[in-house]
Amino acid sequence: MIREAILDIKPYVPGKPIEEVKRELGLDDVIKLASNENPIGPSDKAIEVMQETAKSVHIYPDGNCHSLRKALSEKLAVKEDQLIFGNGSDGLLSLIAEAFVNPEDEVLMAEPSFSQYEFVTNVMGGELISVPLDNYTYDLPALLDAINENTKMIFVCNPNNPTGTVVPEKEVKEFLAKVPEDIIVIMDEAYNEYVTVDEYPETINYLNDYDNLIILRTFSKAYGLAGLRIGYGIANKELIGYMDRVRHPFNVNLIAQRAAVAALEDETHLNKSREVNAKGKEYLYQEFERLNLDYVTTETNFILVDVKEDAGEISDKILQRGVIIRNAQAFGYETMIRVTIGTEEQNQQFINNLEKVLT
Amino acid sequence: MIREAILDIKPYVPGKPIEEVKRELGLDDVIKLASNENPIGPSDKAIEVMQETAKSVHIYPDGNCHSLRKALSEKLAVKEDQLIFGNGSDGLLSLIAEAFVNPEDEVLMAEPSFSQYEFVTNVMGGELISVPLDNYTYDLPALLDAINENTKMIFVCNPNNPTGTVVPEKEVKEFLAKVPEDIIVIMDEAYNEYVTVDEYPETINYLNDYDNLIILRTFSKAYGLAGLRIGYGIANKELIGYMDRVRHPFNVNLIAQRAAVAALEDETHLNKSREVNAKGKEYLYQEFERLNLDYVTTETNFILVDVKEDAGEISDKILQRGVIIRNAQAFGYETMIRVTIGTEEQNQQFINNLEKVLT
Repeated sequence: MIREAILDIKPYVPGKPIEEVKRELGLDDVIKLASNENPIGPSDKAIEVMQETAKSVHIYPDGNCHSLRKALSEKLAVKEDQLIFGNGSDGLLSLIAEAFVNPEDEVLMAEPSFSQYEFVTNVMGGELISVPLDNYTYDLPALLDAINENTKMIFVCNPNNPTGTVVPEKEVKEFLAKVPEDIIVIMDEAYNEYVTVDEYPETINYLNDYDNLIILRTFSKAYGLAGLRIGYGIANKELIGYMDRVRHPFNVNLIAQRAAVAALEDETHLNKSREVNAKGKEYLYQEFERLNLDYVTTETNFILVDVKEDAGEISDKILQRGVIIRNAQAFGYETMIRVTIGTEEQNQQFINNLEKVLT
Repeated sequence: MIREAILDIKPYVPGKPIEEVKRELGLDDVIKLASNENPIGPSDKAIEVMQETAKSVHIYPDGNCHSLRKALSEKLAVKEDQLIFGNGSDGLLSLIAEAFVNPEDEVLMAEPSFSQYEFVTNVMGGELISVPLDNYTYDLPALLDAINENTKMIFVCNPNNPTGTVVPEKEVKEFLAKVPEDIIVIMDEAYNEYVTVDEYPETINYLNDYDNLIILRTFSKAYGLAGLRIGYGIANKELIGYMDRVRHPFNVNLIAQRAAVAALEDETHLNKSREVNAKGKEYLYQEFERLNLDYVTTETNFILVDVKEDAGEISDKILQRGVIIRNAQAFGYETMIRVTIGTEEQNQQFINNLEKVLT
């Protein structure tokens, strides 16, 4: 009965939920630094709006996301018809694959990167071709070299998950200029709000020149709304229209829409999220150096660090002590772990436990 | 760039949101009886849980819906691995199509019925074949006759939207016994909780005998959580496993999961929802008879009624008076409208305005 195309799909392995770890290990105090969640929580203003909206969830959401569309269009200085909303970025990735990927189409990405690019491609029967990262960073020239007549689209995760690196403006510009105009380029900028380096491209400025460009952003990271599932895409009107054809009419829930508007307006919360992240990053860098561990400089809210031992064993040992981090062996890094930058207290708890489990 | 399969997809036309009608018509007092929403709102217990959960939406939802799965498995007396959760029933329909529908596969349904069956089939490149309803009711023998070697699955909306009718137990049993076992039967029971007739089948009892049966239910209707987007599927473990392969890991948001558990436990709210519906139904039946209008006896929270005039004009005129109902011309009924059963006050407001616009 099952479609052949999906027989080989590998199940996604998420970071273990805190409750599950508590249950399984019988621990009371568990922290999770595995899913790149915002450690300071959602905006207080968003919480207020959610609490009010809870009373009217018997009503379907606005399928058009009218208020959020208006607010975001103003903030980003793009037209309303250049925006599309999804049930998380995951939902948008599906819309993209459903709109554009035919069986046998090739889709390019670098590896390791966000696994859902491969997932949505496979669901539509497309073929995922990946090129290795270069020094933990998306290798755009290698992606250009991998283009052939079957290539339908190219994913660029910038900053990249799970490495935290960015491709600078100059390289992105050169890349876009060389990609044939019938191949879609998706710049996934889920961690956009955490980036601090100057050379990070402001890709919205490229939309006028590139009709084949889709930018993805999310409210799951710096805006602290991961649990609500809401992300957005920015592109020219035509591409958005194609994606909109395969969108379910009520794909974004009511509370997510309202909370996102409030979160967008709460710049204080966003700035605090960035500050906490910047401080945590500095602390973790220092501690890794003290422990003589190499790490990849990050433009996100997570750090990939080389523990110089079997990462599976280290991850397990830290988990036993109530700290959930991500074993990077799934990404091909045998001795590395990926840790989300938490609050000051969480970071200390992680470092204390890491130090104890390192031999 | 766009896939050929989706070129012909017709966009879904949802009931207009209240806010949109207020904006467009400059009205302050607008009621919506167009989307079969629960007029008494969500359970107070669910609201409480949502308001508490709002504080922790920076955390990803449990991809496995652990707590809800446990609660529902106990309530329905099915195994936990017989359940799957979706971003509304819409999301589950996509999972079904993505798991099973290859290009050229035929999918059967009756018409008019829920339009998203056709939508998800088309997105996967399958061909939707529909047979007419018989006396506003799913015609299962006609569906059996339409089966051929290309038939992959059959949708049965029971009760049917937009007519409100049910296929009785005896017919469903005969149908299931005759459908070849490699063809999947989806019983969409979104309005299940509103049904009052005895002959309505308890399809969960058929799961032991039919490995090709998928039952769909939702929290959007009687449970009053439409805005949160959460529905569920019940089937044998193997079918659920196939659907799970194409599911995004965090497809159901955190607030929906928690609210659904609370709503399931709140039988008082469910009973009140049913009572308000039963009373409203009797009132509307009486008023339609007084106005000499024919209607279709309903097992849901909406009624299809023949206004004996152009339904588009009547719908427009009622809309101008601040009452949103559904013009059933989109379903092929030129002189019928579909009205959601509301609160006592809403029903009276609808009837008062209907009476005024009828010539």
